[in-house]
Amino acid sequence: MISTDICIIGAGPVGLFAVFEAGLLKMRCHLVDYLPQVGGQLSEIYPQKPIYDIPGYPEIKAQELVDNLMEQIKPFQPTFTLGERVEHLNKQADGSYIVVTNENTQIHAKVIVIAGGLGVFEPRKPALEKLDHFEGKGVAYMVKNPETFRNKKVVLAGGGDSALDWTIYLANVAERVTLVHRNETFRGAPDSAAKVFDLANNGKIDLILSANLKELGGNGKLSSVTLEGKNKEEIVIDADYLIPLFGLSPKLGPIADWGLSIDKNAIEVDTRDYSTGVERIYAIGDINTYPGKLKLILCGFHEAAIMMHSAFKYVYPDQKLSFKYTTVNGVNAF
Amino acid sequence: MISTDICIIGAGPVGLFAVFEAGLLKMRCHLVDYLPQVGGQLSEIYPQKPIYDIPGYPEIKAQELVDNLMEQIKPFQPTFTLGERVEHLNKQADGSYIVVTNENTQIHAKVIVIAGGLGVFEPRKPALEKLDHFEGKGVAYMVKNPETFRNKKVVLAGGGDSALDWTIYLANVAERVTLVHRNETFRGAPDSAAKVFDLANNGKIDLILSANLKELGGNGKLSSVTLEGKNKEEIVIDADYLIPLFGLSPKLGPIADWGLSIDKNAIEVDTRDYSTGVERIYAIGDINTYPGKLKLILCGFHEAAIMMHSAFKYVYPDQKLSFKYTTVNGVNAF
Repeated sequence: MISTDICIIGAGPVGLFAVFEAGLLKMRCHLVDYLPQVGGQLSEIYPQKPIYDIPGYPEIKAQELVDNLMEQIKPFQPTFTLGERVEHLNKQADGSYIVVTNENTQIHAKVIVIAGGLGVFEPRKPALEKLDHFEGKGVAYMVKNPETFRNKKVVLAGGGDSALDWTIYLANVAERVTLVHRNETFRGAPDSAAKVFDLANNGKIDLILSANLKELGGNGKLSSVTLEGKNKEEIVIDADYLIPLFGLSPKLGPIADWGLSIDKNAIEVDTRDYSTGVERIYAIGDINTYPGKLKLILCGFHEAAIMMHSAFKYVYPDQKLSFKYTTVNGVNAF
Repeated sequence: MISTDICIIGAGPVGLFAVFEAGLLKMRCHLVDYLPQVGGQLSEIYPQKPIYDIPGYPEIKAQELVDNLMEQIKPFQPTFTLGERVEHLNKQADGSYIVVTNENTQIHAKVIVIAGGLGVFEPRKPALEKLDHFEGKGVAYMVKNPETFRNKKVVLAGGGDSALDWTIYLANVAERVTLVHRNETFRGAPDSAAKVFDLANNGKIDLILSANLKELGGNGKLSSVTLEGKNKEEIVIDADYLIPLFGLSPKLGPIADWGLSIDKNAIEVDTRDYSTGVERIYAIGDINTYPGKLKLILCGFHEAAIMMHSAFKYVYPDQKLSFKYTTVNGVNAF
């Protein structure tokens, strides 16, 4: 079991900066995110896009902001559980919580901070019979560790950058890669698409265009994927894995079941300290709502600072918080 | 008369960033500050000190943050009245205000934003009889424009960096510079002090140590400054100007008289939009207070964003605010 002062659910920019504000008050943080890397939407959806409204940065690329935040929180040694989704919060007799993920990782924390952005980014799933039956048994929606696919027969599906990039990458790892796309052209970067066409022309991968996923086969474990081709013909492919990469869509997910007050997919909080109605649980960033709320990263930064000052009493019940400016005191690393 | 949408009182980091948030909503700003330059405390008190708690900057020098904010708001062409203190807010029949400074500059604005930090930084004044009589008539507490002192006889008093720096600078401008200091050693930078001793040894300036200001002389206008020397002797110096540079101390100033609700030198605001009790007047940054308030620059940034969305209705009463992310829409300069 992981043990920490504060468990932050969501490792986007606001969750990351919260580590800094906690650290100034000598509180340690562990972060959990369903995405396989930190940065939330910034890293997952628009890493190379410029942001113009971070105070003090006339322009900064999303990924650069994430990198800077990681550098800023380094003195406070945050720890991470990535690629896992928080499923349950189990309240303990002393008021603390045990956080349990979908892979049964357990984290004990005195305070919970939900910094979940627009919610869990759930993969868009293909409409296939028995899909749930093969999830974790051949069907995967993200590539957490490419080595999983070494010397395996892999079918990828999709037409965006993820599908192209992983096809190119796994061409050198898997026994055989088949990329299936419902159109003749790709939405992803033109040079990635060109590279994929090259790989197909050189016989390094199979590329099947204007085709759709139709059926999954296998006994307990995936063994084949059936497609419907351009002329409605059936194409059966031997497959150990199917990776549908149809994008992500935000969902509030299990958070909706924790007894919090929810308004339009957001958690209602008290602006005095961004606490939810449930003791020791706070919500900051895009996932919360209050009168006047703006879904801006810079607002989440403020909420993180205020919230940590309120959480101090749960981590150090016998101490009085004494607040010192970093310009006066610097940053005292753990 | 200057005419603008929003008059921001205080050109510190929060006042500056407010221009950006206003600009995104197509509202123009004019800023007034009593200090002769923008940046507030950051530029005046600790320009070279590093700040560690600006989100996304593991470390940034105070002046660099100010420079970056100036760059960030450039597309929205803010205008400035510097070195003047706002004295009065005169409410107009249509609800708008005319802001009047101590030098009678008038600014017409639909909305007032008080971003005054710890208040006006008032110069610490020497305890001299008839001091107020000579203010503006030979006695000055800051050097707004060094040319004022060309070919004049100037007495400076003080032992910090300002006194040393202006002595060195004015040595080449004024007819004669005399620096008076009550001790034998200086608090300012050692190399500046060394330079001042050099200038004195070379006869370029007069340096009078262990002496105190005692009396001012002149008929309607300053013409002499009398000191008390080391052995209680009187020293009379011909002077067109006396510039006491004894540091600055924060005061709420005239703001205290505008009918706002004040608690411990801060203005009480509603956290829904950081409005004061008085319509069209908002307060953001260190000068406001509310339950949970932290005096952090990053909190002022948040308050600026929220507040501008609320002010929109006074500037564009017939329009509906439509909010667009800069990552999607970029920044549309004026």
